[in-house]
Amino acid sequence: MATPPSPATAADRFPAVTIREVGLRDGLQAITRTVPTEVKRQWLQDAVDAGLREVEVGSFVPARLLPQLADTAELLAFAKTLPGLTASVLVPNLRGAQAAMEAQADWMLLPLSASHAHSLANLRRTPDEVLREIEAIRAARDAAGSACRLEVGLSTAFGCTIQGRVDPAEVLRLMRALVDLGVERIGLADTVGYANPAQVAALFTLAFEIAGKPEEGRLACGHFHDTRGLGLANVYAAWSVGVRRFDACVGGIGGCPHAPGASGNVATEDVAYLFASMGQPTGLDFERLMALRGHLATWLEGEPLHGSIWRAGLPKTLTHPRCG
Amino acid sequence: MATPPSPATAADRFPAVTIREVGLRDGLQAITRTVPTEVKRQWLQDAVDAGLREVEVGSFVPARLLPQLADTAELLAFAKTLPGLTASVLVPNLRGAQAAMEAQADWMLLPLSASHAHSLANLRRTPDEVLREIEAIRAARDAAGSACRLEVGLSTAFGCTIQGRVDPAEVLRLMRALVDLGVERIGLADTVGYANPAQVAALFTLAFEIAGKPEEGRLACGHFHDTRGLGLANVYAAWSVGVRRFDACVGGIGGCPHAPGASGNVATEDVAYLFASMGQPTGLDFERLMALRGHLATWLEGEPLHGSIWRAGLPKTLTHPRCG
Repeated sequence: MATPPSPATAADRFPAVTIREVGLRDGLQAITRTVPTEVKRQWLQDAVDAGLREVEVGSFVPARLLPQLADTAELLAFAKTLPGLTASVLVPNLRGAQAAMEAQADWMLLPLSASHAHSLANLRRTPDEVLREIEAIRAARDAAGSACRLEVGLSTAFGCTIQGRVDPAEVLRLMRALVDLGVERIGLADTVGYANPAQVAALFTLAFEIAGKPEEGRLACGHFHDTRGLGLANVYAAWSVGVRRFDACVGGIGGCPHAPGASGNVATEDVAYLFASMGQPTGLDFERLMALRGHLATWLEGEPLHGSIWRAGLPKTLTHPRCG
Repeated sequence: MATPPSPATAADRFPAVTIREVGLRDGLQAITRTVPTEVKRQWLQDAVDAGLREVEVGSFVPARLLPQLADTAELLAFAKTLPGLTASVLVPNLRGAQAAMEAQADWMLLPLSASHAHSLANLRRTPDEVLREIEAIRAARDAAGSACRLEVGLSTAFGCTIQGRVDPAEVLRLMRALVDLGVERIGLADTVGYANPAQVAALFTLAFEIAGKPEEGRLACGHFHDTRGLGLANVYAAWSVGVRRFDACVGGIGGCPHAPGASGNVATEDVAYLFASMGQPTGLDFERLMALRGHLATWLEGEPLHGSIWRAGLPKTLTHPRCG
């Protein structure tokens, strides 16, 4: 980009920013319609064409629960034909993990609710029971000699729609247990849009003390929803303390069914613009992200798309379409 | 609010946050319809009822240029009947300043473009010519013994739709000149939505070195538009380096006519939520801000309102409607 503004002091101490596209899983999970596999393949190809190199392609959950993600194995097989693409899949349990390993996913992503109430409601298990499942998954993975790496997303890490406040000490306790279990990556997720930027900066700073510096790659991912308008402020706050890996969805899909009309995941194109505006390369191509957004408007006709930068377009100070 | 999250480290070093409502000036300036004075009075009363204690009520520009603000003197007279309310008016030049002093405005707010090209296009004067006008205004104010204080908003401080990049050194040069001229307050404004949070944090940090620490009250105000979705991230970035005074419009009005549909000023209710979520008191009442937003939807029917928090509402962690 032409004449980027001066980067912040935090800019040079950490690696470049990676954005993982999660629309095919977290986005579609919130949308009841089933998108044809052929269309999902095009979506994945469009994402790669826009410069995305990490994509969450689906979820190995029973098809009766999420029929819109039933073609995950097929999509994963296609993803593996795309050079340079790292494919993640969500797995809810050991059975899902076995499917992910069989399908040779690069990463399996397991959610662990920091909220006890949310964990019981969503997974029908306590956080500590989920920890034991994660231990079993890691043991099975190691026994099988699978190259599939294990990432745990600590969901409701910043608050919970059921129990309200989530104690940061509990988040850090679970994180310590995950480090002890030897998972390869841990993320902090604000799936319900409760986080605020001061809290994000404070919790990631504490988390780095447990899970290692960001350049070590373990505490890796910030997953933010824009439900209450603070999504990009939270991304910035996380970045300002060293987080260099973020989940996002083109078009900001993934809204919560309990908050009709509210935004979903932070929009990939907005996050790409945020980092481009700060002179931080992401490798993403703005015009191609806009093209994918346009396709989504057709493929998901009737579903609300979100995000901001698509309306006004890039400022005059960032005229080159490649975000870094 | 119940159980606010831990405030950031910057929280206790500076005074509480003040939000100035600028919808009646910056918001209406971008809307061609004329809102009846009686309705504006109700708007002002609603704002005060919601806890706002500083309001920009209008602009002393020729009525032929902005007929929708022609009743500024009348509205200012009404504002002065509201106990505890501090009323600002925008003035473009010495003539406007004299009108502001006659009408006993508490503050007159003069814009100074940091962009040479924008200054010529908008005010038909160079920034240095505007500085001389500001000097004349200050001299006239002092000679008249008026209590009306002088604030200068450095517009296009973060970039310009005409010339693109604005050199931070030029912003700081103008700021130094304003300090020398003895103006009581200086703000940095991103009227075109070009700012990014790293730039905001860096420029305010440099600006404090020239204009004094935030607790001294001189470098006082961050004025951000949400044109490209970074409005709240910029507010947070400014706050994180010590800015404690922000302009905002209920309903996020004040969009740019050149970017149809794009957001305008940061929404007062979103800024109030941002600070409440961080445990920072603003004195604003969320439900009453929502009530004013509802009135605006009627008074400005057909005009787009913006902002985020109105869709999903407050999170469970912030159930008390009073933001601090």
